[in-house]
Amino acid sequence: MTTSHLDPASLHSSLRDPVLGSIGFLNEVMARYPDAISFAPGAPYPGFLDGIDTERYTRRFLEHLADEQRLGPVKARRLLFEYGPSRGLINGVVAGALRRDHGIDAAPETLVITVGAQEALFLVLRALFPTSAEQLAVAVPCFPGVVGAARLLGIGLVGVRETADGIDLDALEAACRAARHAGRPIRACYVAPDFANPGGSRMSPESRHQLLRLATREDFLLLEDNVYGFTAASGAGLPPLKALDSEQRVIHIGTFAKVCFPGARVGYVVADQPVGARRTLADELAALKSMVTVNTSPLAQAVIGGMLLEHGGSLARLGRAKSALYQRNLTLLCAALERHLGAGEATGVTWNRPEGGFFVRVNLPVPANEALLEISAARHGVLWTPMSHFHLDDTGDTQLRLSCSYLDTEEIETGVSRFAAFLTQEIGS
Amino acid sequence: MTTSHLDPASLHSSLRDPVLGSIGFLNEVMARYPDAISFAPGAPYPGFLDGIDTERYTRRFLEHLADEQRLGPVKARRLLFEYGPSRGLINGVVAGALRRDHGIDAAPETLVITVGAQEALFLVLRALFPTSAEQLAVAVPCFPGVVGAARLLGIGLVGVRETADGIDLDALEAACRAARHAGRPIRACYVAPDFANPGGSRMSPESRHQLLRLATREDFLLLEDNVYGFTAASGAGLPPLKALDSEQRVIHIGTFAKVCFPGARVGYVVADQPVGARRTLADELAALKSMVTVNTSPLAQAVIGGMLLEHGGSLARLGRAKSALYQRNLTLLCAALERHLGAGEATGVTWNRPEGGFFVRVNLPVPANEALLEISAARHGVLWTPMSHFHLDDTGDTQLRLSCSYLDTEEIETGVSRFAAFLTQEIGS
Repeated sequence: MTTSHLDPASLHSSLRDPVLGSIGFLNEVMARYPDAISFAPGAPYPGFLDGIDTERYTRRFLEHLADEQRLGPVKARRLLFEYGPSRGLINGVVAGALRRDHGIDAAPETLVITVGAQEALFLVLRALFPTSAEQLAVAVPCFPGVVGAARLLGIGLVGVRETADGIDLDALEAACRAARHAGRPIRACYVAPDFANPGGSRMSPESRHQLLRLATREDFLLLEDNVYGFTAASGAGLPPLKALDSEQRVIHIGTFAKVCFPGARVGYVVADQPVGARRTLADELAALKSMVTVNTSPLAQAVIGGMLLEHGGSLARLGRAKSALYQRNLTLLCAALERHLGAGEATGVTWNRPEGGFFVRVNLPVPANEALLEISAARHGVLWTPMSHFHLDDTGDTQLRLSCSYLDTEEIETGVSRFAAFLTQEIGS
Repeated sequence: MTTSHLDPASLHSSLRDPVLGSIGFLNEVMARYPDAISFAPGAPYPGFLDGIDTERYTRRFLEHLADEQRLGPVKARRLLFEYGPSRGLINGVVAGALRRDHGIDAAPETLVITVGAQEALFLVLRALFPTSAEQLAVAVPCFPGVVGAARLLGIGLVGVRETADGIDLDALEAACRAARHAGRPIRACYVAPDFANPGGSRMSPESRHQLLRLATREDFLLLEDNVYGFTAASGAGLPPLKALDSEQRVIHIGTFAKVCFPGARVGYVVADQPVGARRTLADELAALKSMVTVNTSPLAQAVIGGMLLEHGGSLARLGRAKSALYQRNLTLLCAALERHLGAGEATGVTWNRPEGGFFVRVNLPVPANEALLEISAARHGVLWTPMSHFHLDDTGDTQLRLSCSYLDTEEIETGVSRFAAFLTQEIGS
């Protein structure tokens, strides 16, 4: 009997890229050390999950749907269980929330409801990069989901360094020119203007305008990921790029994973760019989606749609209590680091203090690699994410990422005290 | 103000392939003729949707999960709302059903739970085709989801004609040799052995064995789609290729869209092929999935898992009542065609009489194109699918597809009488 043994080299090259293994690696470490306190997951606070009433939200959305489409209750309910349009079922509700909360003025039909922000990213990259002749610029360190999607599609990436004010605009401009000169121009640039994962940077209003002007000047599209915008301190929200976008340069991507919950797997993309005379980029993305996932589960869409409607059709209202907790956790984490590690500079350990998001970056005097993580887990019961997972190459990196979203007050305090012991005992800090 | 107007030619080539527009075209025609009887949708019978009790199924699955993973109710319930493993949450339940119903012996960890069968197809194609150096063979006429996924990934297709006994094995063997000779060998072949959409063919047990032997001889993998297997008449089920697969040549894909309901968007793939020394193809597919949709909605998985458990962990038990209705509809459809169109040969109109599935193919003496469909809809209030949507090129085709799954007895009768009037008056049959 001969078995069909597959040679790894015969499979798609993305499968040999470390980025595809990074999530699996962390899950595997977490499974081996169940008692460790983990600063790794960027998942929402579990306590927020207990109040989710899927039945009530579904009923609420069905009432809305019956009203909007003039359907009887049986026909409306059937829409939960049937195939649905690739474009989505809750586009109107989401478009309303984007207008209300962010000043994004997008017609419902220019939205596509996707299986999380990840599918939105994937579809946009597939549409925009017909060949490998053009490249995608990304701020580095970069969310692995973008890198992974690009690898699956064979799209070349150009890393541009990130400052505390977001992507370095001078470096981006230089990268555009160099890429054009090399015959592989930059067609689009991925940015998360608010509290980027993992960098924590936030673009000032002026930088947002400058980035839009640069996109026009150098003729590239902006792929804006708005996942952490809602974590801004109360009253400190800034308009996303899409709200400032008078030239339809911006494709805006979002998810309900953090502001509602991850298990729905519902995200969205606003793609109002005209394509030819009669179509929009959203039409094209919906057509691509019909060949990837067909449509996003109407069951899951209904829960999210109803959850939005129950909160006045507003993401901001949904996110307010959550934002307060994440702000508190971030403050607690930074304060605990301060208390346990002192001013930092003396020991060679420093960290940033972002104004929002889930993450703090810590600089070590030694490489924060997987071997060091293993020591941290085994001897000190504390887990974190090596920042090398967020780089485009496998160069050693002396940074690590701490996430505070998934932990409670006590776990943050205990976790940081273990982390400090790890640093003191293992790397002499 | 300059608007970012996108040139269609600057987008991915798959967007210019007719296959991506085919579903949109049919939906658009159906929307314009809401009173027409439509033989187009391959969707399940709507009456089956009214008894779905998502709450009960979810509770049932949660009890199972709490028991299996030794979790308290709060922790178990949270798994519905959190991110989950890319591989899936209901793998054990699905593996049990595949063993019980089909004799497929697959460990739960060799399954990946996907966003419908479509995502499974997409991931498998991405894994198996690193470059365009190798090709995918498909039986023609072919399910558009395969063609579309291949187009998105730039994978070359080789069409092989289908007989009433499934893919033509001699033609497939010849195609393998020709492709190898041309330096672009066939790496995998997509087949739906039971009641292929749209051809309606079914492979005999002997042909299944021959196909497996051919796969070994010519060294290709089989991609088996089992979507319509459950529609076989009672007691007439045949073992899928995967159950006969002693060499791990077969990657088995299925969906719960027809046997449960489409709105969950839950499918699966069995990929137990070893990759290198320590991994399986399922591991690789899960890694790819983490960059396409991250994971399949646990909310939706729980409903399907619970639905299976409520039916003794068996797809067959779930499908029994449904199979009986589809068998009845198929008989009604063929009988009505017989009654209204006579023996057929006299008028140049013929059709097949498949033993299962949702579809009947009708041969006309003229091209059954979109222009003719427009006439059928506008003047006669009856819709169908041009078979050109299932071919790899845009050559005219004189066949059309009638689907009987979505209609009730009366609609089938009225629809066929309208269809007969259309044929008589418009094409002189």
